[in-house]
Amino acid sequence: MKQITKYIIKNSLKRIFLYRACLARLKMMGVEKVFSYTLANETGVTSDQVRKDFSEFGIKGNKRGGYEINELLIVMENIFHRNKEHNIVLIGMGNLGTALSKYSQFVQRNMNIVATFDIDPFKQKIRSGIPVYSLSRLKEIIDRFKVKVAILAVPEISAQEVTDEVVHLGIKGIVNFAPVLLKVPADVIINNVNLCNELESVIYYVHQQIKADGSKNLELLYKGMKY
Amino acid sequence: MKQITKYIIKNSLKRIFLYRACLARLKMMGVEKVFSYTLANETGVTSDQVRKDFSEFGIKGNKRGGYEINELLIVMENIFHRNKEHNIVLIGMGNLGTALSKYSQFVQRNMNIVATFDIDPFKQKIRSGIPVYSLSRLKEIIDRFKVKVAILAVPEISAQEVTDEVVHLGIKGIVNFAPVLLKVPADVIINNVNLCNELESVIYYVHQQIKADGSKNLELLYKGMKY
Repeated sequence: MKQITKYIIKNSLKRIFLYRACLARLKMMGVEKVFSYTLANETGVTSDQVRKDFSEFGIKGNKRGGYEINELLIVMENIFHRNKEHNIVLIGMGNLGTALSKYSQFVQRNMNIVATFDIDPFKQKIRSGIPVYSLSRLKEIIDRFKVKVAILAVPEISAQEVTDEVVHLGIKGIVNFAPVLLKVPADVIINNVNLCNELESVIYYVHQQIKADGSKNLELLYKGMKY
Repeated sequence: MKQITKYIIKNSLKRIFLYRACLARLKMMGVEKVFSYTLANETGVTSDQVRKDFSEFGIKGNKRGGYEINELLIVMENIFHRNKEHNIVLIGMGNLGTALSKYSQFVQRNMNIVATFDIDPFKQKIRSGIPVYSLSRLKEIIDRFKVKVAILAVPEISAQEVTDEVVHLGIKGIVNFAPVLLKVPADVIINNVNLCNELESVIYYVHQQIKADGSKNLELLYKGMKY
């Protein structure tokens, strides 16, 4: 039984990422303690929201004295299991896949792309340290490195087929860059990163802003006419 | 006055992207009409949610006969201004920037990267048809092509400086790939695409799932012991 599941990462999780980025910056500035309203101000949410999110993820703090930044950061590392090594496979070594395979921040965060895969025999070689294999070796690599997460940077047309294959081999989470809705069993998590949508979201907001500014100007104009 | 704004694209907008992908698939399959519950089923939300989202974006439909897929798709095109050409600049021609500059789907959706920029003189040349300029030519290009949206694929350390520069030159929306919280005026929209966060989200859900499965097994175990 296939079904579409968890297409949208919940916003509370996204806000935890924001708080973490903010805390890392404060720490770099030498700050040691932080209040929820500081985090709220810096990330554009309310203090209540910060406390609610913290509670959802089991983050406790001393309301009066503020939160210890170091402690918060450690708790957040645990939420994302950053104290463990995560082995990941990357499938599709086109332009985007190749760039992702070279993305050094993954390694810095204990996320190791142990192997990459491509159907093109000309691409099957060692590139920048990470091997590029034929898809026939997927099972062997997933088993050997106990891989649970895959990055898909394959063309739209082969995305579902590759998904079925990796799910069959035990992959439980997929970051999918192909602009297509994948069907997976209920216990598999898909996170779609659609670059066109990311750009279109911005275009949408920019046009909303221009429209809002337009009506504001219109309002001012009307007000001007009144007097 | 700088402030952090609109870091998180609203979920209703994200769901519109989902519905659109789903409609495109149905259309390819030869389907002409769709009910909200079909869309809901296919995208993992409730019918109420679909209707609520449609209402938010001013999408009207005939409840009894269902929605015309073609009409829905046209309305959605308008929401994202796909009937217009959008000129975009891309700054930072490292691995990721280079991959983005070659991303053919942008062009297919009327999003034209008119020029790319990098501080490295060795990168300043014509690559795959799109020129790579020195940042000193930013103003000229933004003015000439009336660019409102920029993609930032620069290192973390220079992201804020480049942001200040493009905002000063009239950019109103930024897709930011640098893993850093940028400060911008209230009328500028930032959409952060943090690849590590995308991967960590999946790792988070996979571990939640494993934990849930674990407690389920534990529950079964306890039930087994009971009888």
